Amino acid sequence: MNDLFLRACRRETTERTPVWMMRQAGRYMPEYRALREKRTLIELCKTPELACEVTLQPIRAFQMDAAILFADILLPLEPMGAPFSFEKGEGPVVHSPVRTRAQVDALRVIEPEELGYVLEAIRLLKKELNVPLIGFAGAPFTLASYLIEGGKSAHYDQMKRIMYGDPDLWHALMAKLAEVVRKYLHAQIEAGADAVQLFDSWVGQLSPRDYVEFVAPHVSHILKSVEATGVPVLHFGTGTALLLKQQREAGGTVLGLDWRTPLAWGWEQIGHDRGVQGNLDPTVLFAPKEIAISHAKRVLDEAAGRPGHIFNLGHGILPGTPVDTVRAVVETVKAYSARS
Amino acid sequence: MNDLFLRACRRETTERTPVWMMRQAGRYMPEYRALREKRTLIELCKTPELACEVTLQPIRAFQMDAAILFADILLPLEPMGAPFSFEKGEGPVVHSPVRTRAQVDALRVIEPEELGYVLEAIRLLKKELNVPLIGFAGAPFTLASYLIEGGKSAHYDQMKRIMYGDPDLWHALMAKLAEVVRKYLHAQIEAGADAVQLFDSWVGQLSPRDYVEFVAPHVSHILKSVEATGVPVLHFGTGTALLLKQQREAGGTVLGLDWRTPLAWGWEQIGHDRGVQGNLDPTVLFAPKEIAISHAKRVLDEAAGRPGHIFNLGHGILPGTPVDTVRAVVETVKAYSARS
Repeated sequence: MNDLFLRACRRETTERTPVWMMRQAGRYMPEYRALREKRTLIELCKTPELACEVTLQPIRAFQMDAAILFADILLPLEPMGAPFSFEKGEGPVVHSPVRTRAQVDALRVIEPEELGYVLEAIRLLKKELNVPLIGFAGAPFTLASYLIEGGKSAHYDQMKRIMYGDPDLWHALMAKLAEVVRKYLHAQIEAGADAVQLFDSWVGQLSPRDYVEFVAPHVSHILKSVEATGVPVLHFGTGTALLLKQQREAGGTVLGLDWRTPLAWGWEQIGHDRGVQGNLDPTVLFAPKEIAISHAKRVLDEAAGRPGHIFNLGHGILPGTPVDTVRAVVETVKAYSARS
Repeated sequence: MNDLFLRACRRETTERTPVWMMRQAGRYMPEYRALREKRTLIELCKTPELACEVTLQPIRAFQMDAAILFADILLPLEPMGAPFSFEKGEGPVVHSPVRTRAQVDALRVIEPEELGYVLEAIRLLKKELNVPLIGFAGAPFTLASYLIEGGKSAHYDQMKRIMYGDPDLWHALMAKLAEVVRKYLHAQIEAGADAVQLFDSWVGQLSPRDYVEFVAPHVSHILKSVEATGVPVLHFGTGTALLLKQQREAGGTVLGLDWRTPLAWGWEQIGHDRGVQGNLDPTVLFAPKEIAISHAKRVLDEAAGRPGHIFNLGHGILPGTPVDTVRAVVETVKAYSARS
């Protein structure tokens, strides 16, 4: 097995920098669009054979150094009692936004077996893959943002109404989500995931003070428990320049950086006793290939060959991204980072 | 005239901290909604008597220490040749997004007189006001985001395609926008504005490196010229924690901070030889009044009574904000900051 990714997570010296891309399986790939033609995203997630196939597509196409399970961070919400759907052009819509004590109390702390199709996809993938498999979950703040706002939000005002106005209710919801996520990540590891990533995509909305008060205890509840398994834990958010120290305290073997945070500066904030993952701007992949390549080299230059860097985008790959540019960037990372 | 705001802009010691709120005139006020019932936002902007009335509403209701002209950052786009409208629930929509060399070349560098209704509103306001009047404009990056994306964007991928892929075209567009804004702000000052604010609301999308390369020269073109008039210039963006030093270099008597950047830390980055404006989270105004008040006091505590702080929100006030909480926060700032 190509274990570059796992060794980099442990900050071991590697022959070259490992590379994968968030959302590497998905809409920008023609193979994926062909599968999606007759099926919804959720149908793909719930059919282990298809989730497995979609997960493998970018490994075959680009020889990524890690696979990330094809799934969605919102999957746990449905069995918890908050069904959602993906509306065309709108993203996810939670049918009944959760905003009252009664609604929070009604949410079930599910057992991971209720998401058995995810665990089955992991077991299938482990038979196929020759690179490490990354499991994942959404972090409590990011899940709560969808639950409370009912979808992607511009101002997060409904959730902050609760956070600032009714901290007890806030913490009750966050604690439920954290316990669901903690168990879910443990179950993914038991099913065979070689590493897990916690996506706190929208937590950059908060000031450091609010992060420490309203989020960190719940993230820590998850990550300290999962880290005890010995499996690498990747902890990612966007807009987190001023939260990196606090995120590191909350947990993670490797911290993710978005494209706004200069990698060298961000790693300094986190501390070099943790790994970093990132941080090419995903929109750079729309530029001419040679420009994308030069930006990718700059990311590697910022990491300065220090052990513990995993090359990735600063956020998920966007629909419409040219496949050829993805391939060129992956090849560049592999060649340019090779230690002589 | 109450000139607390202007003296704070010059970092003079004041009896107390001046306070105003971005978007203080608008949808959260019943007086405004009554006027809007039979008119569009653009109709209000284009009728100087009504723009004047709307500007005065929050001064009467809350005794703010500064008035900000009721207008919209997109107004210059229409005479430049890029008409837009506000679609219900969607925000502004530019009818033909500008993405080609021919479209950029076709944009006109307008004379400010083509926005004569704005200048007329300023002249009317100067007869009515007993507090300073702030004029404003959108910054080139933020205007370009609407022009290129066609509206508010999630990923700014269309604009970054041009920025990274065709820097010549990017700079041509930015230079045109910068020259329009420069003249427009000068004209507002000549009409009577006591200060001006440049809104670079979405520039926090960029890394510091990209800001310096793609934005700073154009902001600097505007601000160095406007600062030469001696009128205070407020320079504002959101998500700018890592851009503050570069924004300060680009210009501004006072730099604006959003709620994510701790005020004391942000001011340190900017340097204490500039003022700061901010930075209460606008969503805090939805919390119970005593919580909003305690957050407002914390903002003042972070400023530590240092001359040069102007109390404001970290971004515009949101629709639905309770008027009573706005009043309570304004009164708190005035009383709590009073120097004995």
